[in-house]
Amino acid sequence: MPESTSPKVVTAALLVIGDEILSGRTKDKNIGYIADHLSAIGIQLKEVRIVPDETGKIVSSVNTLRAAFDYLLTTGGIGPTHDDITADAVAKAFGVPIGVDPRAVAVMKPYYDSRGLEFTAARQRMARIPEGADLVENPVSRAPGFQIGNVIVLAGVPNIMQAMLQSITPRLNVGDRMLSTTVTVHRPESEVAELFEATQSHFPDVAMGSYPFSEDGVYGAHLVLRSTSQARLNAAEAELKSRLSGHGLL
Amino acid sequence: MPESTSPKVVTAALLVIGDEILSGRTKDKNIGYIADHLSAIGIQLKEVRIVPDETGKIVSSVNTLRAAFDYLLTTGGIGPTHDDITADAVAKAFGVPIGVDPRAVAVMKPYYDSRGLEFTAARQRMARIPEGADLVENPVSRAPGFQIGNVIVLAGVPNIMQAMLQSITPRLNVGDRMLSTTVTVHRPESEVAELFEATQSHFPDVAMGSYPFSEDGVYGAHLVLRSTSQARLNAAEAELKSRLSGHGLL
Repeated sequence: MPESTSPKVVTAALLVIGDEILSGRTKDKNIGYIADHLSAIGIQLKEVRIVPDETGKIVSSVNTLRAAFDYLLTTGGIGPTHDDITADAVAKAFGVPIGVDPRAVAVMKPYYDSRGLEFTAARQRMARIPEGADLVENPVSRAPGFQIGNVIVLAGVPNIMQAMLQSITPRLNVGDRMLSTTVTVHRPESEVAELFEATQSHFPDVAMGSYPFSEDGVYGAHLVLRSTSQARLNAAEAELKSRLSGHGLL
Repeated sequence: MPESTSPKVVTAALLVIGDEILSGRTKDKNIGYIADHLSAIGIQLKEVRIVPDETGKIVSSVNTLRAAFDYLLTTGGIGPTHDDITADAVAKAFGVPIGVDPRAVAVMKPYYDSRGLEFTAARQRMARIPEGADLVENPVSRAPGFQIGNVIVLAGVPNIMQAMLQSITPRLNVGDRMLSTTVTVHRPESEVAELFEATQSHFPDVAMGSYPFSEDGVYGAHLVLRSTSQARLNAAEAELKSRLSGHGLL
């Protein structure tokens, strides 16, 4: 590679927890949002898993993914009902105790008090935080998420998840942003495949993918180039365009 | 359990293959569709993974998931460009050779011929099928998916994936359908949590989940009950409603 320094890479996985996503009842709205957000701040999302509300499955997934990537984010399962088992499962994965956390009570109780609501056992369930975790602020409805080690536990309700992700972002260690450029051709991707592959072979450090589309019955493809180096991206794009133009395909 | 026979359970996992989903560039539209479809025909989707276009990662995920569930469906990575590596990775996972399959050529070549298009090397790439696999028909654009063992390889483009899923459905072994009913309360879920949990403890065989929503600033929850037995579902629903009514929560 012509680059003088190698890019700084920070990776993450996402664990989506919830029977309702797997049954089809609820359509996930968090994966795409989190993928966009992480890309924008310089963290590469490398794997996503969706698992049911089963302690054993959550524990094993948390332990596999937190060992394999720099960060693991989770969504779902931190509400007040008996099917919300994420906090307990994460505590189990780390082998630490869990209980009602005074810091969580301190942000939640005044919120309920101000609305004339009791801080019931069910609501206190949302204050259960594994020992050694830092809280993640929830500006929407107060019940916090938390971070323990490299695992960040977020709500599943999209607007709350998004607010928590915003809260946590300043403390994340980030890498070089993956930059991308798209060359769009109005030909079936099979007609540009050879030239595309030839370009890839000259730029093994630039990730290249072809994404077909059809518009009004005309087939086309978005040829996407991705790299942390703007210089490499520009060079690869120039070569690809030159090859395509040379064959009358652009 | 009061049921005289235990339900027939058939499980599946889904492996979504593609850098573009993890980068956020493309928003997945297949997971929710496949979840709905499998639920409707009596197959329980138990896990989903999204992995990048990396052979090693695809191979290990295929081998883990095909061993753990009755079926593994995959989406993505079977097009004509160099980043389409799913068929080769699946062949590697099974330890079988892969080559251009005459059955695939037989459905693809006439399609290109009829449009005056050459059956180029790139298009022939889409006819590469692992040895021992059955083809999955693609009525949209001909290039087939395939099934090898309990692994079913589908396209990533949603309308093609959907057509292939339709093609494959009659050959799937299915179990008892998971039935569900929803009790909607217009209270924060924390206020119904105790009664909901008490009902769950009486019906350990009925899966119960609470899914909060807010509408015009009013908090509510969908309490979802799921079982393969209509009788058990009815009994659990009746008890939950009675408990909620008794406390003026319904």
